[in-house]
Amino acid sequence: MVAALSLSGLFAYSQQALWGEEEIISPVIHENKTVSFHLSAPNASEVLITGDWMPVEGWVPGTAVMEKDEKGTWSYTSEALEPELYSYAFLVDGLRVNDPNNAFLSRDISTSTNIFLIGGSPADLYRVNDVAHGTVSRRWYDSPGLEMMRRITIYTPPGYENSKEDYPVLYLLHGAGGDEEAWIELGRASQILDNLIALGKAKPMLVVMPNGNVSQGAAPGEGVRGFYKPQFMVPGTMNGRYEEAFMDIVSFVEENYHVKADKANRAIAGLSMGGFHSLHISRYYPNTFDYMGLFSAAIIPPQDASSMVYKDIDATLKTQMENGYKLYWIAIGKTDFLYENVIEYMEKLDSLGMSYTYRESEEGHIWKNWRIYLSEFAPLLFK
Amino acid sequence: MVAALSLSGLFAYSQQALWGEEEIISPVIHENKTVSFHLSAPNASEVLITGDWMPVEGWVPGTAVMEKDEKGTWSYTSEALEPELYSYAFLVDGLRVNDPNNAFLSRDISTSTNIFLIGGSPADLYRVNDVAHGTVSRRWYDSPGLEMMRRITIYTPPGYENSKEDYPVLYLLHGAGGDEEAWIELGRASQILDNLIALGKAKPMLVVMPNGNVSQGAAPGEGVRGFYKPQFMVPGTMNGRYEEAFMDIVSFVEENYHVKADKANRAIAGLSMGGFHSLHISRYYPNTFDYMGLFSAAIIPPQDASSMVYKDIDATLKTQMENGYKLYWIAIGKTDFLYENVIEYMEKLDSLGMSYTYRESEEGHIWKNWRIYLSEFAPLLFK
Repeated sequence: MVAALSLSGLFAYSQQALWGEEEIISPVIHENKTVSFHLSAPNASEVLITGDWMPVEGWVPGTAVMEKDEKGTWSYTSEALEPELYSYAFLVDGLRVNDPNNAFLSRDISTSTNIFLIGGSPADLYRVNDVAHGTVSRRWYDSPGLEMMRRITIYTPPGYENSKEDYPVLYLLHGAGGDEEAWIELGRASQILDNLIALGKAKPMLVVMPNGNVSQGAAPGEGVRGFYKPQFMVPGTMNGRYEEAFMDIVSFVEENYHVKADKANRAIAGLSMGGFHSLHISRYYPNTFDYMGLFSAAIIPPQDASSMVYKDIDATLKTQMENGYKLYWIAIGKTDFLYENVIEYMEKLDSLGMSYTYRESEEGHIWKNWRIYLSEFAPLLFK
Repeated sequence: MVAALSLSGLFAYSQQALWGEEEIISPVIHENKTVSFHLSAPNASEVLITGDWMPVEGWVPGTAVMEKDEKGTWSYTSEALEPELYSYAFLVDGLRVNDPNNAFLSRDISTSTNIFLIGGSPADLYRVNDVAHGTVSRRWYDSPGLEMMRRITIYTPPGYENSKEDYPVLYLLHGAGGDEEAWIELGRASQILDNLIALGKAKPMLVVMPNGNVSQGAAPGEGVRGFYKPQFMVPGTMNGRYEEAFMDIVSFVEENYHVKADKANRAIAGLSMGGFHSLHISRYYPNTFDYMGLFSAAIIPPQDASSMVYKDIDATLKTQMENGYKLYWIAIGKTDFLYENVIEYMEKLDSLGMSYTYRESEEGHIWKNWRIYLSEFAPLLFK
């Protein structure tokens, strides 16, 4: 054990103890599902905590005051929380600070935020459970349409590698500010699919998560641009080129994976901007997908309506309808700022006689809803 | 553009602007390779910066004082820095804080630290350059020896998927406190291999990065234990069971990938504890690997010397020597706390008449060295 002790001095730069902090565990999830948070900040005058379970005030969740003990450790215990994947931060004398005792962070655009999970339904789908796991690969494909190599994240279901079977494919698109990491990191897509497949609720399928930003070949930090501050909107993101070039992705997948390459075995879904992309891709290639999912879709005027993609929207929707499809699934939260846009879009579909399934949820434009939508949408596919 | 603007309110929880901060870019790498850091903390009394380019004081890098402007933004500009992947943190009134304007973090055990890169040799190998990229997969394999499914990270070189060729394999092991993410995240293994292969300096090869912690099926947060505070030493990590079960990994790789399944096409290397594992695996299976790499190897007494693995060390080394090998590569930094142990081990090898190549570097037990060692070792393989 002497050897082990001497080893514990190794990672000098990273070991909390060496920063003079005592060993703190935070967050602590209690049996009654209240959660305690602790932060050592002896010199701070005020420490608040903000978390996405707190009532929203304006655009941001509220805050709660933490209490300081005689050692300078600030603590707060929440009420009992519903099952969910939560995020939180501390505000130390006004400065937003991550919890140094919580190693788990999710990046959303340029901000990394600590996360924790309260078990139970639906959050048990977001956990890694003791079930068979699929494989998640980060790969690069050539996009002649966008004239660059692009990074893509692909989930293959458990057993895929050793199977002679061909599988169906869900193309799953991120929102503005996201990239090919978003559905894996914030959306828990691989955990949701592993769990739904293990429960027999979803068919084994590939989930293909491309980068939807036309001018960006890879997620920030993962491409030739190196490390830079990610932006909310990447230039040219909704100008039609992504939709035009989308079949580059379908071709890549169908040439490189043993998948069923027909309409009955292709689904496309996306959140926010990805819902916009899914809407337009599925009608621009109107006989390609049998399943559409619009999650809190950003149904807004295109940035560059001169693109071929945005011509004849009603006519191409009609063609899509006449070609037939199995499911056109639209979901949005009651407080989403895009709620009215989605209602108007459904009125258009009504006027065209297009059938769809509508799922209205509580709350708004948040990852909590998109995880729920994926958990409900995937079981409807490829039946 | 109105639509785009209204969208920019979306990710309320994550948008810096909504926390009342002005838009700050940090770090800023100047043309002369000095680097400026900025942090808005109007209420702080003192802000320091610590970075791994600063001279080490005791175990930790030194600090420098940041200066506050009239808006409450603290700034510091470094001297010109040598090409390298660096990490840093702020100390705000004594509290260690990540840079909220830098989205890029590496996790080392339980601590996430901001990173940035200064271009030039050798750091250009750690960048994503405009070259062909391999695929990085996170997959699970069954380990009968450890009686569990275990997560593994596998790099396949550019073109692997569409090639009929069989490839050689480097098994690359992490240190104590690490896991199957360490070499990808902190070690930049996929970038190093992509770049060396593109330069014609390394042969295309698979790099297999398993989890070396016997009692841990997957990296913290990626397994059934969920989110918990990662420990430096996981129980039973150096008790012999990992070495005993290692052929589970080799079998999995050779059954599931088109690789050359012979000694001439297998290499094993690791840092610190992974160097210890590489040493013992390669002599316990003494006719399996033609290439060994011991990077700052933790050549220390085993925790549980009763394991079969640690019997007859000299005799099995002799057997390994008699069976023959192409390269036994030993690297360590001059200030590494394991330096004397490695020198003693080489004296043992000398006394046994075993040949090896010794690479002594500056500095100590740090990722900077392990990235350099991988960059130098990979080109020596499979010639």
